Amino acid sequence: MTTAAPLLLTPGPLTTSARTRQAMLVDWGSWDEGFNQLTASLCEQLLAIVNGTDSHHCVPLQGSGTFAVEAAIGTLVPRDGKVLVLINGAYGKRLAKICEVLGRNYVTFETAEDQPTTAADVERLLQADPGITHVALIHCETSTGILNPLADIAQVTARHGKRLIIDAMSSFGALPIDARQVPFDALIAASGKCLEGVPGMGLVFARKDALAQAAGNSHSLAMDLFDQHSYMAKTGQWRFTPPTHVVAALHEALLQYAEEGGLPARHQRYADNCQALIEAMVALGFRRFLPAQIQAPIIVTFHAPKDPRYQFKAFYERVKAKGFILYPGKLTEVETFRVGCIGHVNPAQMQAAVAAIAQALEEMQVLEI
Amino acid sequence: MTTAAPLLLTPGPLTTSARTRQAMLVDWGSWDEGFNQLTASLCEQLLAIVNGTDSHHCVPLQGSGTFAVEAAIGTLVPRDGKVLVLINGAYGKRLAKICEVLGRNYVTFETAEDQPTTAADVERLLQADPGITHVALIHCETSTGILNPLADIAQVTARHGKRLIIDAMSSFGALPIDARQVPFDALIAASGKCLEGVPGMGLVFARKDALAQAAGNSHSLAMDLFDQHSYMAKTGQWRFTPPTHVVAALHEALLQYAEEGGLPARHQRYADNCQALIEAMVALGFRRFLPAQIQAPIIVTFHAPKDPRYQFKAFYERVKAKGFILYPGKLTEVETFRVGCIGHVNPAQMQAAVAAIAQALEEMQVLEI
Repeated sequence: MTTAAPLLLTPGPLTTSARTRQAMLVDWGSWDEGFNQLTASLCEQLLAIVNGTDSHHCVPLQGSGTFAVEAAIGTLVPRDGKVLVLINGAYGKRLAKICEVLGRNYVTFETAEDQPTTAADVERLLQADPGITHVALIHCETSTGILNPLADIAQVTARHGKRLIIDAMSSFGALPIDARQVPFDALIAASGKCLEGVPGMGLVFARKDALAQAAGNSHSLAMDLFDQHSYMAKTGQWRFTPPTHVVAALHEALLQYAEEGGLPARHQRYADNCQALIEAMVALGFRRFLPAQIQAPIIVTFHAPKDPRYQFKAFYERVKAKGFILYPGKLTEVETFRVGCIGHVNPAQMQAAVAAIAQALEEMQVLEI
Repeated sequence: MTTAAPLLLTPGPLTTSARTRQAMLVDWGSWDEGFNQLTASLCEQLLAIVNGTDSHHCVPLQGSGTFAVEAAIGTLVPRDGKVLVLINGAYGKRLAKICEVLGRNYVTFETAEDQPTTAADVERLLQADPGITHVALIHCETSTGILNPLADIAQVTARHGKRLIIDAMSSFGALPIDARQVPFDALIAASGKCLEGVPGMGLVFARKDALAQAAGNSHSLAMDLFDQHSYMAKTGQWRFTPPTHVVAALHEALLQYAEEGGLPARHQRYADNCQALIEAMVALGFRRFLPAQIQAPIIVTFHAPKDPRYQFKAFYERVKAKGFILYPGKLTEVETFRVGCIGHVNPAQMQAAVAAIAQALEEMQVLEI
């Protein structure tokens, strides 16, 4: 079943290497020194990826990435804070929803799904509302694959003396983010995305001084990153039962990340995947939703074929039968589907996926793309 | 490394079968129908274990068991509710702490760590305070291994028209709980305990009518069990990225649970493990912390040897080198250590663990036990 399982061309969970999965064949004691070393080694390696060793703590958290985003907002935005949420897709909307549920004061700025927020927007918004304490944004919005200009927005935010919260779920590890040049209070990632681990834990890189001031902010016991970090710093252990196998898999995935050549190599492979995918899809007649200059090499949104014989579910099943799992679109106004470029896959496999797509369309007699 | 890994005699994460771990060698798409079927099948099998198919929903949640406990309290106790928390150990204290952080009104009733709460206690407390809306307790308190009289407490609680929240983390699947005889609004369990899955997800069995009335109660987006259930009921999918490999492992573990003979067989094996452990330890001279009639066959607390040459860390390391991972004590006033009886282990392995303990003590020249 292992080798026959279809390749996941999805934004996470994604395809991992056999070596990463095999790291889950061991049961670890969560109290054991050997396991503590795995956790410590993880955090050290992850901080190095963002050049954050001196300035930030890495706080791992059980659950999906959204748990970590909620934990970051709940812990790092004081109860009297005010968040400017930048939105151009479903994940930006989720950030606002979290502020709403947690009772944090917030305002939103929304652009179209093919329109990045600009630094000029943020400049204007911060000037107009001095009550804003934090800016929160999605680095790569997986709804479409759009890349927001993080470095520029971070500069404006810092110049105004405001704090930045970055949801880098689908970009961390593949697109460069340097904590020495991009000031942030929190950057949020997850095990099962570009690090090519399996899903089950989130990661918050929290600025040391911000975290030190965050005692008592959290609305939640389990999601209190101040407590989570304090306990881990004191004992080397997770505060509550860790997903031991997920941790072991991520540790193994990070060894392979380093062996591959770290971020530059990971970035290059995904860029190559993205290019191979787009070239082959365009050759078939597909149109992509985003222009090239704002397309992150993470996930690509394509317009669905116009042919009335096209129907996503049947298309999905046929492509899956040929060994590739695609991802549905997440846009309300335009019919689309998405293809991920991330995970343990290479350009040749992306081309094979497009060949499967071509074959599926032929079988369905979809002619007009 | 797989076969050489030490046996975990801990209350979870615990030792799982190779078959369960091998189920993690496949990457599942979280949006895929095959994965949705795994989740649906899980929930169906789990509800059958508590005879709750008609009366309850099974709501799986990402994260550790504590996340699920917090989610249950946050979702099912209305903001104007009042919780009576029954405490005789660290996990009972954690229940109270959750109420505190969530801003839910609560009172506590605490007995000594070797003293179960009685139904008479609850009767008296409910009579004295009609403002109480919910009773919350730990079924088997893993701090010591003590079993609280759940069925009797449930009857008293129901007779008073109050609602019950049961943290059955370490007992679910091994000790019988029948939803048709034990009325509860929420029963909380986790993947990595007596079901012998790997850690990474919690499970809340929520009474259907209680959950239907719980919209908007939750303090958290990610931990809102009303939303979590509604979304899953509508789409068959998890609301946020599921720990796919953990789900697959639990599904495989449940197949083995059924093959073994379900709850009676699991209960019997753990009871046999417990008896084998205690007999062999008593033969060495060890004294157990709890009397037999309140000792659950889940984890056993032993008094530490009196000999000054005994030191837990060295003892732990020596036993580990022989292939068995023990668990430290969690009592503040008495020096103890704990040995779990749960997981993919049998009585012969428990006896082998005690032989390793004997050898370790001999090496340490610990004579007085």
